[in-house]
Amino acid sequence: MSEEIVVIEGDGIGQEVVPAAVSVLDAVADFQFVEAEAGDAVQAETGEALPQATYDTVADADATLFGAAGETAADVILPLREAVGSFVNIRPARAYPGVDAVRPETDLVFLRENTEGVYSGHEDRLSEDLSTLTRVVTTSASEQLAEFACEYVADRGESGFHVAHKANVMRETDGRFRDAVVDVAEREGVEAEEVLMDAFATRVCLNPGQFDVVVCPNLAGDVLSDLAAGLVGGLGLLPSANVGPDNALFEPVHGTAPDIAGEGAANPSAAILSAAMLLEHLGYDDEAADVRTAVESVLESGPRTPDLGGNAGTEDVTTAVLDRLD
Amino acid sequence: MSEEIVVIEGDGIGQEVVPAAVSVLDAVADFQFVEAEAGDAVQAETGEALPQATYDTVADADATLFGAAGETAADVILPLREAVGSFVNIRPARAYPGVDAVRPETDLVFLRENTEGVYSGHEDRLSEDLSTLTRVVTTSASEQLAEFACEYVADRGESGFHVAHKANVMRETDGRFRDAVVDVAEREGVEAEEVLMDAFATRVCLNPGQFDVVVCPNLAGDVLSDLAAGLVGGLGLLPSANVGPDNALFEPVHGTAPDIAGEGAANPSAAILSAAMLLEHLGYDDEAADVRTAVESVLESGPRTPDLGGNAGTEDVTTAVLDRLD
Ligand SMILES: CC(C)[C@H](C(=O)O)[C@@H](O)C(=O)O
Ligand SMILES: CC(C)[C@H](C(=O)O)[C@@H](O)C(=O)O
Repeated sequence: MSEEIVVIEGDGIGQEVVPAAVSVLDAVADFQFVEAEAGDAVQAETGEALPQATYDTVADADATLFGAAGETAADVILPLREAVGSFVNIRPARAYPGVDAVRPETDLVFLRENTEGVYSGHEDRLSEDLSTLTRVVTTSASEQLAEFACEYVADRGESGFHVAHKANVMRETDGRFRDAVVDVAEREGVEAEEVLMDAFATRVCLNPGQFDVVVCPNLAGDVLSDLAAGLVGGLGLLPSANVGPDNALFEPVHGTAPDIAGEGAANPSAAILSAAMLLEHLGYDDEAADVRTAVESVLESGPRTPDLGGNAGTEDVTTAVLDRLD
Repeated sequence: MSEEIVVIEGDGIGQEVVPAAVSVLDAVADFQFVEAEAGDAVQAETGEALPQATYDTVADADATLFGAAGETAADVILPLREAVGSFVNIRPARAYPGVDAVRPETDLVFLRENTEGVYSGHEDRLSEDLSTLTRVVTTSASEQLAEFACEYVADRGESGFHVAHKANVMRETDGRFRDAVVDVAEREGVEAEEVLMDAFATRVCLNPGQFDVVVCPNLAGDVLSDLAAGLVGGLGLLPSANVGPDNALFEPVHGTAPDIAGEGAANPSAAILSAAMLLEHLGYDDEAADVRTAVESVLESGPRTPDLGGNAGTEDVTTAVLDRLD
């Protein structure tokens, strides 16, 4: 029985790169694709950026491939992460041979806590002058992330990971996060090396090769993975996975790129690499590896979109990837 | 009447770079120096990392030059910033000719909110599983920072600044921060361009030249300025100023560097550049410019400490700076 994959193009270049990724998925596996809507366009039409029907479809599917949303990004992606019960956002950031990078030796994977921290949604306007946000950290969510991280590094034959935090200032909350992660790692026989998130920002620029898998709270993961995107040459190449207990959502880290949307010039690599993460997640390891190899080969010597200094279009790159999969 | 400058060496290389900076100050101005203690060593001796006497002396002085503290850093520096009523942390991050940098075109100044955000100190352990932190943002503190920023860019003949935030997620708190900063800028006729803090992290790596003065909430300023430190070649060259209404504290951004402490090999440049910020703050603009020029000349063609690939000591570099001041 073929798996059901929800496909949400969203806005802007989401409508160009997601079809590209779907054509790649279609070439290597026998999925049943279900289209769903979310984003600025739906909001303009219906008043809702994320229709309940989309939320429900995503919650029930085997996996979802999402493109990007514009102004409504937070209204779409945060509830969608919740719809799949995602407790971890996996964000690999690596430089590819043939692609200009500030730091070509970068090869990192961020495992970002995906449910709490400053993303908890509790904010209050307490007076004319003062507002507060309640940052939430639980041991249970931190442990769940840490257990995932331990399996993740074990699967890759690595001995440990870094845990980035700001527990010297957020002593109780990031202290709880750090302790939970370190305790789980110890129990699982995995090395967890601590690094303050600000020190990480300096050190990763100076020498990214000293890091590998980095476990972090929600906002730290957001900012530090975007920093790593800068080191590898931009957001155009970064895929991501939002993984839940029995469901997952995959998305390129880039946004809608309104400056180039509609021109057929968007780089589909991040979306196709997100599709590769989807394949791997569903157990299609060989197909995932094939797709990655094809994308890498195109990045090294195939047609290039303008963001990488070429003048090929989304379709040219997609066709080149498909050719290499034959 | 000569100004009273409190000098706190603190721990580790603070004890090496602060005397270097004091000798430079002594060479160009007629200050009265008052020594005070804080840090790990004092904590070990007295049980208090920041004695009340030090706090009071700093609160009363014209300015303070601080080195670094070890494990007790947060217990020392956060109250000291409060002692001078510091509402802004000024963090210039620029690459110097002759010094290896990941991004040699980097020339940024972060104006970091210095009193609130996640640094408010309100954390609670609500249950066995859950802790919270109350992130605080006020319009008054945001406006005070913005007014400073407007004067700062006007003094430099620039037209505007960027304001980095995460108001797409922290809508009420960072929304308040953003609105206050943008409103003040508008009123003062200064351009304030918004950038999400995660997008800033990517963009500053790809092209730091597009940014100049960056206004940010407390933790954003902490992480993004450390990121910029990575782009210019490390923390060894970054000075900073914590400015209050009628008092200020100056410190290198680096820490105690326990790996090299006691060897006389620490790079005194960040401390000396912090002293230059102190001079400028007290109105000694010519002397500040002279010190900066001397440091730049040494960085370009003088003796180098091991962090910059040389084998000179702290004293060699300091002597070279002093020679160029004659
Ligand atoms: C759009 C925004 C809510 C989101 C986040 O902060 O998680 C984005 O920056 C991301 O990293 O996916
Ligand atoms: C030591 C720590 C509390 C401090 C901070 O977070 O402000 C440091 O990182 C800094 O940037 O001066």
